[in-house]
Amino acid sequence: MTRDLLAAPPVIVNVGVESFADGPRACGATVLHAAWRPPGSGEARIAWALAGLAGDPDDPACPGSQVDRANQEAVRRLLEAQPVLEDIRLAREVWPEMGRSLLHAGPPIPWTRMCGPMRGAAIGAMLYEGWAASPAEAEALAGRGEVAFAPCHHVGAVGPMAGLISPSMPVAVVRNQAAGNLAYATLNEGLGKVLRFGAYGPEVLERLRWMASILAPGLRRALLALPEGIRLKAIMAQALHMGDEVHNRNVAATSLLFRLLAGALVRSDLDRQTVEEILRFIDGNNHFFLNLSMAACKASLDAAHGVPGSSLVTAMCRNGVEFGIRVSGLGDRWFTAEAPRPVGLYFSGFSEADANPDLGDSAITETAGVGGFAMGAAPAMVQFIGGTPADALAATREMGDITLARNPAFSLPALNFQGAPTGIDVRQVVDTGIRPVINTGIAHREAGVGQVGAGIVRAPLACFEAAVMALAETLAGC
Amino acid sequence: MTRDLLAAPPVIVNVGVESFADGPRACGATVLHAAWRPPGSGEARIAWALAGLAGDPDDPACPGSQVDRANQEAVRRLLEAQPVLEDIRLAREVWPEMGRSLLHAGPPIPWTRMCGPMRGAAIGAMLYEGWAASPAEAEALAGRGEVAFAPCHHVGAVGPMAGLISPSMPVAVVRNQAAGNLAYATLNEGLGKVLRFGAYGPEVLERLRWMASILAPGLRRALLALPEGIRLKAIMAQALHMGDEVHNRNVAATSLLFRLLAGALVRSDLDRQTVEEILRFIDGNNHFFLNLSMAACKASLDAAHGVPGSSLVTAMCRNGVEFGIRVSGLGDRWFTAEAPRPVGLYFSGFSEADANPDLGDSAITETAGVGGFAMGAAPAMVQFIGGTPADALAATREMGDITLARNPAFSLPALNFQGAPTGIDVRQVVDTGIRPVINTGIAHREAGVGQVGAGIVRAPLACFEAAVMALAETLAGC
Repeated sequence: MTRDLLAAPPVIVNVGVESFADGPRACGATVLHAAWRPPGSGEARIAWALAGLAGDPDDPACPGSQVDRANQEAVRRLLEAQPVLEDIRLAREVWPEMGRSLLHAGPPIPWTRMCGPMRGAAIGAMLYEGWAASPAEAEALAGRGEVAFAPCHHVGAVGPMAGLISPSMPVAVVRNQAAGNLAYATLNEGLGKVLRFGAYGPEVLERLRWMASILAPGLRRALLALPEGIRLKAIMAQALHMGDEVHNRNVAATSLLFRLLAGALVRSDLDRQTVEEILRFIDGNNHFFLNLSMAACKASLDAAHGVPGSSLVTAMCRNGVEFGIRVSGLGDRWFTAEAPRPVGLYFSGFSEADANPDLGDSAITETAGVGGFAMGAAPAMVQFIGGTPADALAATREMGDITLARNPAFSLPALNFQGAPTGIDVRQVVDTGIRPVINTGIAHREAGVGQVGAGIVRAPLACFEAAVMALAETLAGC
Repeated sequence: MTRDLLAAPPVIVNVGVESFADGPRACGATVLHAAWRPPGSGEARIAWALAGLAGDPDDPACPGSQVDRANQEAVRRLLEAQPVLEDIRLAREVWPEMGRSLLHAGPPIPWTRMCGPMRGAAIGAMLYEGWAASPAEAEALAGRGEVAFAPCHHVGAVGPMAGLISPSMPVAVVRNQAAGNLAYATLNEGLGKVLRFGAYGPEVLERLRWMASILAPGLRRALLALPEGIRLKAIMAQALHMGDEVHNRNVAATSLLFRLLAGALVRSDLDRQTVEEILRFIDGNNHFFLNLSMAACKASLDAAHGVPGSSLVTAMCRNGVEFGIRVSGLGDRWFTAEAPRPVGLYFSGFSEADANPDLGDSAITETAGVGGFAMGAAPAMVQFIGGTPADALAATREMGDITLARNPAFSLPALNFQGAPTGIDVRQVVDTGIRPVINTGIAHREAGVGQVGAGIVRAPLACFEAAVMALAETLAGC
């Protein structure tokens, strides 16, 4: 906007309400319109809170300067993260206390309020675990409260779309070697009828059983042959030079991972049939890397969480009903708003009327500065989610206005090797009104159907406004 | 240039010699300079020949209209090509009449005039074949004329850099399924000390022996498990969406090929050790796909060769001394000029003073509309060859001014999915003075050293001018 103002000779500058420009324009005047809006959706209390959180170089003791310092520390931890895929375990081995509970995507939500695809995935998980013999039995079980539900995020995990993790599902174990913390994600099932989009038919359950019995132990064996694990950050960095944004496009990252795993699998003592099956499965799914990208982002962001006073967003996620964020300096609180509806491209036979509101923990990638934030690296992706390559570049540039850093490890060739805009600052989001862009899959709103498209959503402003208010209260008490 | 003229309000337009603008400028006038040059380097006979080759919609019988029609046919064959990797054979199996001869890159050149790296590679090939026991013996053998030399292009083959093919070397066999013709290329050795850059030490020869005895039969076995072969055009198209231009950057194409080969190798009856060795070799060389890309381009262009009257360039290549082109309507003639020197980035310890003039058949990729012509697809490549991502986009756009088509199969995301500019027209090159851009490796000028950098060259105009003259003569005789 600043550039536009400078590029043309201004005669009248109109700020805010665009219709105010109509009069002068009708009289033949040249009017430049600046699309400014008051911060905090025009609510004075939010604007005041925001003003109180602004840093002041002349007053290092003021709350805003405290936030700036806290953010420096939080961003340092985020940028220094070194997520490494170390192991594949069953969920019940990672969380022995899990019992008869299921993890799900997004902020907390009870069974009774879950959206269709999450209910479908939960039904599938109960059938997979053998807790119920039919979908009706599963629904009754959950309805009686005999299955506990908790967000993946509450135990350091993330799951795409419905994000269901049940005790007998394998999870990737990713260690942030810089800080030592661990993060977890399920293994990606592929496209078509899959649990994460709410499908729970026999082929879905059969695939999950194969993944637990063949894929997971096989990959575990391959990882034993790679004693240093698999450095996910290096794969992500290279994939960003190869047209991926490592959220909705993972073909390069999956290919690079495949190269590493193929060698390790062939070197392992697995029988040849198993090696072949595993390679065929991964080769058949260009999204295989997605869940590892998510776990890498979670491991990186968790290290940046818990810095007192920091306004850095450390999680964005959706349960299909609500969108939720967490902020580094605001503990385990969730700040939620209604989940938005994606805008995108639909598979043949489906339309927006079929779409569930936005769903999944995969927005952890945007929270870490990739996905929609690195869309400028992935012009080919617009064929999958809509828009133009110019939109993709513009989205990345715009995200630079609400982030605290450029990640030097994630350079974007098409943007002259500038680093991906990284580390969302709730203050900048509320100040500019620019909502974080998120690339996403679109699930059918009914249980059992599956994916119907892919597209883009913007995070709702209300979560960020609530977080600003909470941060202002926290610091007022200092 | 047209755009620049229109964008600013012209007061004086100066065309041609820029210093003519100095006078008016000194007097305070606004002068726009158009960098136009007369076609044919200012030689009237070339300009007249060119004028005689211009198409005229109102005169379908005129020579230029004949050229236009011939080009339509030639370009159709080029765009319809379907190059498929079918087999790996030894050169002497493909060409049983080869005897004691060596194939080399570029237009024909005798031993006595060969550049350092080509001599080095030829020495290496003679040692590899056992025709000589020492480099001195090899030089003497060649000096006595006891080894015959011929261009790879004369037998449907291409080789990167020195391009040496000796009878015991394996070659990839690529069939253009659309026209049925075959093309051949050696397998890529990797980086470092390699024969194609003129190195011939023991490790070079040992690697060549491993490639002939383990790699080639292994890949052949893998290809038996893929009865439809490997569709190279599909890999190239996908790689162009993944940051490769499939000449100097092949990491995506190599990764996609690796995925196909890994499955086939594991399914084959090869022993596990061999499978592991082969996978490790390909995984260790992100340029592995280059030679297959070259063979695919050669197979595509050969189908477009031999259309009477066509001004389409069907080969550009360099032997390190001369740059040569062939033109579809001009038979087997070579039009040559002095080989240019690349401009690029040098490895530590080397400079332009060490560089050999441009070398290799790999400009077949640019001839087919990829490589430098598709550089806009590969912004990350500028880290290897120099320049900026904006230069890469500009190069692709500029090549649109000297080409006959946009290849719909090779869409370039960063250019809004426009097809790669494909099919060089000698008329357009001479008319505009725009020389085809070529991405290239840089060899040390002395035998035995190897690669010292990578960069960009422009094809010399003189070849294209000579071809225009020849085409005008051919058509005058109609």
